[in-house]
Amino acid sequence: MPTIPVYAAPSAKAPLERTTVERRAIGESDVLIDIHFAGICHSDIHQARDGWGEGIYPMVPGHEIAGTVAATGPGVTRFAVGDRVGVGCLVDSCRECDNCRAGLEQHCSGGAVPTYNGRHKDGEPTYGGYAKQIVVDENYTLRIPDALPLDVAAPLLCAGITTYSPLRHWNAGPGKKVAVVGMGGLGHMAVRIAHALGAEVTVLSQTLGKREDGLRLGATHYHATSDPATFEELRDRFDLIVSTVSAPLDFDRYLSLLRTDGALVNVGAPEEPVSLNLFSLLMGRKTLAGSNIGGIRETQEMLDFCAEHGIGSEIELIEAHQINDAYERVLRSDVRYRFVIDTATL
Amino acid sequence: MPTIPVYAAPSAKAPLERTTVERRAIGESDVLIDIHFAGICHSDIHQARDGWGEGIYPMVPGHEIAGTVAATGPGVTRFAVGDRVGVGCLVDSCRECDNCRAGLEQHCSGGAVPTYNGRHKDGEPTYGGYAKQIVVDENYTLRIPDALPLDVAAPLLCAGITTYSPLRHWNAGPGKKVAVVGMGGLGHMAVRIAHALGAEVTVLSQTLGKREDGLRLGATHYHATSDPATFEELRDRFDLIVSTVSAPLDFDRYLSLLRTDGALVNVGAPEEPVSLNLFSLLMGRKTLAGSNIGGIRETQEMLDFCAEHGIGSEIELIEAHQINDAYERVLRSDVRYRFVIDTATL
Repeated sequence: MPTIPVYAAPSAKAPLERTTVERRAIGESDVLIDIHFAGICHSDIHQARDGWGEGIYPMVPGHEIAGTVAATGPGVTRFAVGDRVGVGCLVDSCRECDNCRAGLEQHCSGGAVPTYNGRHKDGEPTYGGYAKQIVVDENYTLRIPDALPLDVAAPLLCAGITTYSPLRHWNAGPGKKVAVVGMGGLGHMAVRIAHALGAEVTVLSQTLGKREDGLRLGATHYHATSDPATFEELRDRFDLIVSTVSAPLDFDRYLSLLRTDGALVNVGAPEEPVSLNLFSLLMGRKTLAGSNIGGIRETQEMLDFCAEHGIGSEIELIEAHQINDAYERVLRSDVRYRFVIDTATL
Repeated sequence: MPTIPVYAAPSAKAPLERTTVERRAIGESDVLIDIHFAGICHSDIHQARDGWGEGIYPMVPGHEIAGTVAATGPGVTRFAVGDRVGVGCLVDSCRECDNCRAGLEQHCSGGAVPTYNGRHKDGEPTYGGYAKQIVVDENYTLRIPDALPLDVAAPLLCAGITTYSPLRHWNAGPGKKVAVVGMGGLGHMAVRIAHALGAEVTVLSQTLGKREDGLRLGATHYHATSDPATFEELRDRFDLIVSTVSAPLDFDRYLSLLRTDGALVNVGAPEEPVSLNLFSLLMGRKTLAGSNIGGIRETQEMLDFCAEHGIGSEIELIEAHQINDAYERVLRSDVRYRFVIDTATL
């Protein structure tokens, strides 16, 4: 049971602090990973502060993990010491249900095991990536291609797959007009990936403040949603809208921007119920949908795609002692576009 | 300008009464149709009573029309006198937009011309099927196959296509589990069509009152939504749910009945906004969608499909003087399953 330095929230009300947790011994099919970098996802803050309830403390957040293999269990076949690897939002699932067999472990009928703030099958709590090391089953470990630096690769494990998966599922590609709502950690990845997939990309952001970045990352158009003219001008425009924001949108307005058979897919979600008029869906046979991260196979596909297209996250590298400040800045949307913790400082 | 006997609502507050309207002269590509039967759709009542606002009076409802061709314009190529024909919810559209070109005239960007309570391109009001005759462009006229009796075919022109289109679009067929919410004019058609398409059909109705009919028409299972056990038992069950009801559903509960990648498609819609929790869509990559009738080409496909499978509506034939009573009975859901007016009595 190795004892590992981590940054953890001791309770919902307290700031994160340096401490240690015990990881399980390296099992038959486990790899021990030296974590080099861990991204800060907005959901880390939600969970550390118990925004979703039933938080398990101490909580070590972090599900955007990049590092190298330090040791392998005797049954490991796919990884060797020194391999560049990543871990995302899941570290286990039932492996038997229809969803698991279809490579949709995130929708595991038995409940996938989250990388932190969850429990392993034996009931032990899971601890995430704000840590020096982690032990993960090789079947839930991803390979990070050499072409991707580990620091900009870390956020791909959540922000990357969360946007890649719906863009692929709803066929973003050549000839398609795709809008991305929100230009943050998820949104900026959606712009890069949708552009690399060949779609024409429009950013819909509250203001034009990040317009230059949006265009640089691959958007062709950039509109402010605070300007009512945006909703007039873009009416019936898009095949697909991916909303990355957690604030409740005026869905009827956004649905009016879709063409016939268009889809508005949410990867962010407000905690409160949202309201919409069903006629906004009936007229134009439109779809309101949701998507949640991606499966293991698709996460690997995403990493390979990003390596091929030279896509990493835009990051701001921080030291471990800056985590609590970084949380405050994330809540103010004051980051371009993802904080990544250099775990050498932990 | 032929003068035609009709049943019309003189105003939003008054019952329908016998009167006459003038139809346009038979134009180059028009057919004059002797109407034999006209179905009563719930939306006739909404519109006759100005439930959607901006009603045009006098209003002659009726967009489930079956009859025979009485005369043809000089340019008509597809129909001859005596042909068995139908008219549905649309009698014209721009014919030029992407939607029209794709055979989705119901989503015409310029606005399709509804069979009644709308205006022709020249500004003249449209009058529907509670009438002895109607003049319709041959391009918006459907052929009713000989195998379909005209009386049971009439409701196919709205109730049939409204349910056929989403069942086809969302791939109801062998190996798929389809639920139909509501066992009324639309619902009973959805059951027959989904069954004929090869899907396993479950009816979700408020009570078990129409269970025997549901099973006879092709459902394998029939559950009461008033029983909370229904939502436990059917969790994660369906690939597709078609909701035919206009009452606002508890969408989070219904979405919980879908499998991963399942879709809940609404063909009925409440006038008020509905509420849902977006997590109900994110978990399982689920879809909430809408569908509105179907295009002309697909309506013909539906009629041919129904003829092939011996599918008509279950109807209660009435005389014209019973229309106002029938409206009251529709509002009480006291009809199995569609009133059809015998226009010989008009």
